[in-house]
Amino acid sequence: MRAFLGAAADPVVRKDAQRVRGRSTGVDPAQAAGGGPWADLIEETPSRILLLVMDGLGDIPSREHPATPLEAARTPHLDELAREASLGRLLPVGPGITPGSGPGHLALFGYDPIGVQIGRGVLEAVGLDMKLEAGDVAARGNFCTLDPSGIVTDRRAGRIETEKTRVLCARIQTECERLDGVKVVIQPGMSHRFAIVFRGKGLSDEVTDMDPQKEGRAIPPARPLAAGAARTARAANLFSRRVQALLKGESRANAALLRGFSKRPDLPSLTDRFRLKAACVASYPMYRGLARLLGMEILDVTPGGLDGQCVALDRNRDRYTFFYFHWKATDQAGEDGNFEAKVRAIETLDGALPRILEWKPDVVAVTGDHSSPVPLKAHSWHPVPALIWSRWGGGDGQGRFSERTCNSGSLGIFAMKDLMPLLLANALKLKKFGA
Amino acid sequence: MRAFLGAAADPVVRKDAQRVRGRSTGVDPAQAAGGGPWADLIEETPSRILLLVMDGLGDIPSREHPATPLEAARTPHLDELAREASLGRLLPVGPGITPGSGPGHLALFGYDPIGVQIGRGVLEAVGLDMKLEAGDVAARGNFCTLDPSGIVTDRRAGRIETEKTRVLCARIQTECERLDGVKVVIQPGMSHRFAIVFRGKGLSDEVTDMDPQKEGRAIPPARPLAAGAARTARAANLFSRRVQALLKGESRANAALLRGFSKRPDLPSLTDRFRLKAACVASYPMYRGLARLLGMEILDVTPGGLDGQCVALDRNRDRYTFFYFHWKATDQAGEDGNFEAKVRAIETLDGALPRILEWKPDVVAVTGDHSSPVPLKAHSWHPVPALIWSRWGGGDGQGRFSERTCNSGSLGIFAMKDLMPLLLANALKLKKFGA
Repeated sequence: MRAFLGAAADPVVRKDAQRVRGRSTGVDPAQAAGGGPWADLIEETPSRILLLVMDGLGDIPSREHPATPLEAARTPHLDELAREASLGRLLPVGPGITPGSGPGHLALFGYDPIGVQIGRGVLEAVGLDMKLEAGDVAARGNFCTLDPSGIVTDRRAGRIETEKTRVLCARIQTECERLDGVKVVIQPGMSHRFAIVFRGKGLSDEVTDMDPQKEGRAIPPARPLAAGAARTARAANLFSRRVQALLKGESRANAALLRGFSKRPDLPSLTDRFRLKAACVASYPMYRGLARLLGMEILDVTPGGLDGQCVALDRNRDRYTFFYFHWKATDQAGEDGNFEAKVRAIETLDGALPRILEWKPDVVAVTGDHSSPVPLKAHSWHPVPALIWSRWGGGDGQGRFSERTCNSGSLGIFAMKDLMPLLLANALKLKKFGA
Repeated sequence: MRAFLGAAADPVVRKDAQRVRGRSTGVDPAQAAGGGPWADLIEETPSRILLLVMDGLGDIPSREHPATPLEAARTPHLDELAREASLGRLLPVGPGITPGSGPGHLALFGYDPIGVQIGRGVLEAVGLDMKLEAGDVAARGNFCTLDPSGIVTDRRAGRIETEKTRVLCARIQTECERLDGVKVVIQPGMSHRFAIVFRGKGLSDEVTDMDPQKEGRAIPPARPLAAGAARTARAANLFSRRVQALLKGESRANAALLRGFSKRPDLPSLTDRFRLKAACVASYPMYRGLARLLGMEILDVTPGGLDGQCVALDRNRDRYTFFYFHWKATDQAGEDGNFEAKVRAIETLDGALPRILEWKPDVVAVTGDHSSPVPLKAHSWHPVPALIWSRWGGGDGQGRFSERTCNSGSLGIFAMKDLMPLLLANALKLKKFGA
């Protein structure tokens, strides 16, 4: 990696570091999101960290493919990094637990993924680039088909086209600006899906789903599960009736199901917890939304794709001390069960690595938010390969970056939420613990 | 392993799984016995798990034997499993902690071995195949020798023969059916040992031991340590006096010492916690008793030995989703310090492996409940080698199953109580955590 890395800051940085405390939130950020001895040891320095997330990276061999995609791929740049890096494998949530993207990313960013859970409505809303304010209640929406007696005959309204959903959402938005004093914002998604946000004082997410879960039943009304939830349930039920009145002429999408009512979690920001100026370099709304929830700044990646992400990185290289760079193609290939596509996705990223690292970050971590093995065609529980490169990381001397080389790395197999303190240490941002 | 494994369930099982909840116990089973995020993710499916426990399996090299018994043994079948398996090492209780058989097995079965402790009296009683009801108080008994002044001169009554103990126990049982309204059941053990169960309303195990711990002292009376324990102490003291009266003509065994008063722990069953139909395939009463305490069904292994166990497995292959298969010979050899015998015990089990796996379980785990290294001639704290084979496990590509290959497996070195969630995951019985 000498060609495009190696000019990292001298350790002297550590002593002369500018010490600036993050803004105070009034709560102990460490306690709220799962702390550790690192919490009191952080000093803000100019050293810069790149966390490169290859979504769903981890994989398993099969009889058809005895080498994993990472082992089969030609990855000269990752291998060059690996030679000077410390390797290990990350357990996103715990042994045997298959994480969704939410818990996987929370753990990558150093939050306890069991203590901090993000509701499905919130994930859907941030995934559609909606901005959530404190107190907002978000839910996932499906258009569905009702028969004349009010029975759900198709929970997905025949999977109507995305464009149709856009038209319907615009019509509903015009007629449902406010319901009983509660502001309503809806945002169309893919196919029959949309997200809805209820905004106003005294709203609660302790409301039951308005979804019969199977066809042949009526839509259950939203019921409050707590004393303060009556207002939200009322607004949700009003919305449901209003949609049915508006869409009664439609043959397929003539009603809506809402579920996963949830509020934005009250999380200390990444900036506050780790005293980092953090930026998100991601193309997909879901990951941008998650990063925004954690207080990162979201960089403009126009024109999109790896190229847009590299340009954004280069433009902002001196403005932040932490960059989260997200690469989606590995996960898509894994979920599709497409071995060759996953190999290509890895090789594409490897090819871009010299450009991604051109600004010579002090610390580079390469890993995933979870495994998405080709044979399983889904997220899985398998630990994710990880490398940490820095001038002070201690090379494990492995010439390859793969699941198997990572099994015997110096980092071991450890909880994903402990990655962040390791990155801070490699960036010489953590003082000594105890005398 | 192609010859006798490989026809595991398709991942489709996961989606179409039959969802049946275990019977409700009214308490949160996860909390009571040490939970995890898996508790809310389990779905009951037909996939089948085999947990093959080679008791005391783990070992260490010595100058005399630089290869451990597992390394020295010829194990073609275990090695074939290992090639397609994920490997690791299990810490039964914690670093440096040498477990008894109770904590080791509790951890294997996914219970927190520190939070859940089983008393010595209960272990002795279940080890002698006694059935314990809720509220019973069990204790371990020793015959001993008293001199005419009531001083203990031999705490083990000259280690009288097992047959003699049987005769004495039968005599005592006839004369001590009830003591002060408390039912008494005694069961002879090996040599001078027996177990006793007190049965009745309002009994407590908060009673002091009736054992001077060394010769030259009188037998201390049982004293109640809690308000509700007076009745149990009285019954125990009555028993002691009755035994002395009955055996006063005996030259060696003329009295009894009782210790380890304990009740059956109120544990959620394995069936409830993991939604498994669980069966025990073990020859030794101690392990059958432990399995019964955890709610497993105990299979008849007549005519005994590996052969009886294999027949029992085969007969019941379609009736359960979890099989606990116990192999004792490895531990006995380790405790005897007999290297060759341990090698033979491992090779014997390996030779039976094709027959043990003939029914093609979906998940196979091979490990031990603790290490019993030959050089130590005792249980030890060393992590236990473990392999998990499944179609979805992810082969680590190691061609051998041994302590050293397990050191660099993808499972890492982890807490034994986390094995069960991993087995559930490999059986595709765990849903995704979070969105």
